[in-house]
Amino acid sequence: MHAPIELADIAADVLARVRDRAPRVHCITNTVAQQYTANVLLAAGAIPSMTISPEEIVSFVAGAGALLINLGTFDAERRGAIEVALGAVDAARMPWVLDPVFVDRSPGRAQFARELLARGPSVVRLNPAEFAPLFGGDPEAASRVAEVYATVVALTGGTDTVTDGARRAVIANGDALMGLVTAMGCAGSALVAAALAVETDAWLAAVAALAALGVAGEVAARTARGPGSFASAIIDALHGLDRATLRARVRTS
Amino acid sequence: MHAPIELADIAADVLARVRDRAPRVHCITNTVAQQYTANVLLAAGAIPSMTISPEEIVSFVAGAGALLINLGTFDAERRGAIEVALGAVDAARMPWVLDPVFVDRSPGRAQFARELLARGPSVVRLNPAEFAPLFGGDPEAASRVAEVYATVVALTGGTDTVTDGARRAVIANGDALMGLVTAMGCAGSALVAAALAVETDAWLAAVAALAALGVAGEVAARTARGPGSFASAIIDALHGLDRATLRARVRTS
Amino acid sequence: MHAPIELADIAADVLARVRDRAPRVHCITNTVAQQYTANVLLAAGAIPSMTISPEEIVSFVAGAGALLINLGTFDAERRGAIEVALGAVDAARMPWVLDPVFVDRSPGRAQFARELLARGPSVVRLNPAEFAPLFGGDPEAASRVAEVYATVVALTGGTDTVTDGARRAVIANGDALMGLVTAMGCAGSALVAAALAVETDAWLAAVAALAALGVAGEVAARTARGPGSFASAIIDALHGLDRATLRARVRTS
Repeated sequence: MHAPIELADIAADVLARVRDRAPRVHCITNTVAQQYTANVLLAAGAIPSMTISPEEIVSFVAGAGALLINLGTFDAERRGAIEVALGAVDAARMPWVLDPVFVDRSPGRAQFARELLARGPSVVRLNPAEFAPLFGGDPEAASRVAEVYATVVALTGGTDTVTDGARRAVIANGDALMGLVTAMGCAGSALVAAALAVETDAWLAAVAALAALGVAGEVAARTARGPGSFASAIIDALHGLDRATLRARVRTS
Repeated sequence: MHAPIELADIAADVLARVRDRAPRVHCITNTVAQQYTANVLLAAGAIPSMTISPEEIVSFVAGAGALLINLGTFDAERRGAIEVALGAVDAARMPWVLDPVFVDRSPGRAQFARELLARGPSVVRLNPAEFAPLFGGDPEAASRVAEVYATVVALTGGTDTVTDGARRAVIANGDALMGLVTAMGCAGSALVAAALAVETDAWLAAVAALAALGVAGEVAARTARGPGSFASAIIDALHGLDRATLRARVRTS
Repeated sequence: MHAPIELADIAADVLARVRDRAPRVHCITNTVAQQYTANVLLAAGAIPSMTISPEEIVSFVAGAGALLINLGTFDAERRGAIEVALGAVDAARMPWVLDPVFVDRSPGRAQFARELLARGPSVVRLNPAEFAPLFGGDPEAASRVAEVYATVVALTGGTDTVTDGARRAVIANGDALMGLVTAMGCAGSALVAAALAVETDAWLAAVAALAALGVAGEVAARTARGPGSFASAIIDALHGLDRATLRARVRTS
């Protein structure tokens, strides 16, 4: 087990490496989330790209350090892009994150998410409503799912649970306003992808990224006057996040 | 006729119901407006979704309380999505809002808007420039249009006129900065859709939503330093809007 | 050569004309950049439109004063829209800006950018990383490129170099936070397009737009607490930008 202070230091280290190395993160994500996701990645020090054009996605993925696949505004064009991108990722043995947005709303989307899970994402990040149609209603099953799929499951919400089957961290950071900003979950997944580009232990990468985002949310909540100003403030906070703040605020068990 | 104080209370009641019931609002809208529309809905207490994938749009609409159809960045994919969505809406007798963005710029778009009008939207929200190519240059014709199409016409601008043919409210709230934020009109239409999900009287729903947004704009203008900070501040204001503020500020005739 | 004070006055004049005439600027741009680009144009006083639907793009371009073509999230749909739009632009002898985003990442995109360059853009705006694959690694070649293609090259970064082959301005305004807001470069290109709609000298238009944006960035940096609040603050600053501030701050050589 890791003590909170230890995970805070790991989060600070991962964040420092992202800032230092400026990894490219290619994001196949929904049009609702693209701008916010790009700004969160830039604030953290990463370089986002977002094309879904089949002819050029291989070039973009080849130059990236990690890939994000987000199923929001799922359509034929994005499904094609995902197939091409996963081929490039397999060839490069590159880490990738699956964010199965809204699989609870559409059986076809849930089926596609299951197929992608079988392709071996480094991390799957989702909320409890999305977990249920894929794995059944018991979030305690996250560890088993991680083991079966040989992946890291990051189940986010009021608290975030991150497990690779063997290890498990519960992160109690964040603020309720995070749920009122569209694409916050998507941006969290993108931040996990950025962390994977600089940290080979996928479990540590996911814990580091989600703890950092949660702490940034707490810092932002101190000055925000509602979800509009909060959306900007958390980007400011992420950009300015330092080791001392992480040490003082990361709460894990 | 309703006194302003009465409409202010109705707006407060509708807003309270949106916050309490958290209705899902499915939005087929342009990519320019998606993020802002989603954030306005979230700030009001509603749950947005935005997919336009033909295979899954029926599932999303079936789980929603209202639908928004916005014609901005109109393309073949969105036209197909609209057709599928309207089938689902008809089956579920669900309220829906038509926002015929920029019909003044393109004859083909105006023609498509006329076809959609014949499908019976609960509310059509548009500005005077968009009204003219559909119904002629006289905005006073709004009442007749509402009667002919058995819909509610919400004609927004410096003041907002909302009529169902029999009833008519002129809302004198809002701020000029609202015209300098892209998607503000689109977000207003989405807010009308959220109100329709909790208020069966479509005229009251439209008046309530537009009065609330106008008052939020006035509150935001007190602290904003320009259109950039205003775009965030109006989301904050909408999120925090209370009955006392609505009573003090709603101006209708 | 122009003295900084003279270029500051030209920037103020161009900005005043944009505010006065409210030119329409049609933007074929990537979905990541659409919202921010629209808000920057609105803040400057221009009227953005963004449809890429082949059936209606001719109507939109015909009513516009300038066109922006941005290659981000380049796809078959946007390539088709570009072809149609350029036909309309040629017919109307309308100014247009080419923004060859990320041509350094994909050979196919670089090839397409070369084809578009041969179509005679009024201005091509790009950064040094994008300049290299198109024209070789020496940014000093910008003047020769401008001459060969009979265009204005605006090479932006820490400083902005704008040249039409004969004239050359180096603008030393701006703030490092501009590089941490997605679509800032795209929005700069859109602002150049707005300037082209009111200023027939393309070199002056580009200098004016980029100097204004750089100064707005400096004003924004004084209050911003990070890239999130900066993204809003620069829109506020652009909206409020006056001649005195431009005179005090424009630094060119």
